[in-house]
Amino acid sequence: MGEHRIWTAALVVIGDEILSGRTEDRNVAQVATFLNREGIRLAEVRIVPDDEGRIVEAVNALRATHDYLFTTGGIGPTHDDITVDSIAAALGVPVVVHPEARRILEEYYGARGLEVNEARLRMARVPEGAELIPNRTSGAPGVRIANIYILAGVPHIAANMLEALDGTLEGGRPMVSVTLGAYAAESEVADLLRETEAAHSGVAIGSYPFFKDGRYGANFVMRSEDEAAARRCNDELAGKLEEAGFETVEGGI
Amino acid sequence: MGEHRIWTAALVVIGDEILSGRTEDRNVAQVATFLNREGIRLAEVRIVPDDEGRIVEAVNALRATHDYLFTTGGIGPTHDDITVDSIAAALGVPVVVHPEARRILEEYYGARGLEVNEARLRMARVPEGAELIPNRTSGAPGVRIANIYILAGVPHIAANMLEALDGTLEGGRPMVSVTLGAYAAESEVADLLRETEAAHSGVAIGSYPFFKDGRYGANFVMRSEDEAAARRCNDELAGKLEEAGFETVEGGI
Repeated sequence: MGEHRIWTAALVVIGDEILSGRTEDRNVAQVATFLNREGIRLAEVRIVPDDEGRIVEAVNALRATHDYLFTTGGIGPTHDDITVDSIAAALGVPVVVHPEARRILEEYYGARGLEVNEARLRMARVPEGAELIPNRTSGAPGVRIANIYILAGVPHIAANMLEALDGTLEGGRPMVSVTLGAYAAESEVADLLRETEAAHSGVAIGSYPFFKDGRYGANFVMRSEDEAAARRCNDELAGKLEEAGFETVEGGI
Repeated sequence: MGEHRIWTAALVVIGDEILSGRTEDRNVAQVATFLNREGIRLAEVRIVPDDEGRIVEAVNALRATHDYLFTTGGIGPTHDDITVDSIAAALGVPVVVHPEARRILEEYYGARGLEVNEARLRMARVPEGAELIPNRTSGAPGVRIANIYILAGVPHIAANMLEALDGTLEGGRPMVSVTLGAYAAESEVADLLRETEAAHSGVAIGSYPFFKDGRYGANFVMRSEDEAAARRCNDELAGKLEEAGFETVEGGI
């Protein structure tokens, strides 16, 4: 297999509520899982507060160094929702009301007997030149401009927007992972892991210890863009661990 | 109340398992909560892979711009645990075996009838000049060097290390938050929120929508270093919301 291009993405999670500890982020994992499926590697995440300068800094650092940049959070109707303005500032373009976004909001709120007041109209504002990312959950769409994908912070709405993007992004081969569990202390098998990884080029082995039902062990995750290679690595590791007297469990513990 | 210094910290979460979506991070929220209590503001988080170059880059960017830098992950005994080496590289110091860390590991494993093999001894390696952060859970200590605090990735072990640091860091006034729930759509009360925030200097209002038991609403979180100010803001907001016909719930919904 020849060299091939690796596609990478970064994610900027925007929100004081994550940095204050009030809310546990759920978007890193779901954006990562989505990107794996699309053959794109999530290479870095930054979590920044609701502060325009800090958002601009993170966006400009990451949009230039990755194929894709995703953001989550800060696209609702309230004063602390400043993501669109911040990204427009980062790109040096004005903010405009997107006619289709306005129509979607009018239809969504109209069906509920509500008007699109000034706060709701905020959710139709986009950096000039942007396209919309559909969102069947709540009316308000996500926004794409250049290589930047602006998603909601509420996890199920972000999930809905990711679903709309499925198959629309150029990527490479999906990253595959194979997990092997073993009732072995990491520190007993560290050499064995290192040697096995070294013998399987293109496969990375991660080791994640656990203590469960009174027993120590670890899950070993083999990640590769080549499923057969990950599988071969798994089989060799399983054989070596069993040979050394450790109980293993395919698929992980 | 006069001007006072604001203490800030950054956190680097290290681990392929977070960026691959395999593991949901739990450390951002617990480090944030700990820092709030110590009067230190978590100002930025970066999540980076198990890659020395990327760890060095994040550590050097953040240790210079914040009072404190925390890291989680990558301090176990296996080949993918490269945090200590990476931070030593970032600081330009060699890695040495810390005699007290070695003694702790010998005692811990000795009590279990086990030897400190080469893999376990990895957990006694520190950047030259470092001090230890005690860890009653698993023997292997955390590490402090300069303004960098190197913690475990396993959340309950990281929690144990944070507990050991309680009261040892210089900080300012703890950040206080007061939460008010309301059965009000964010987009109905956006103006009211903006005006209330503007009238209460030193208080930031975050707005977090929910859909629960068939009803829409939002929790409004007032954050300030001045508890009385946050409380006054809360009371005014509650009054205005009730006046506008919305049911409110002290403490949040």
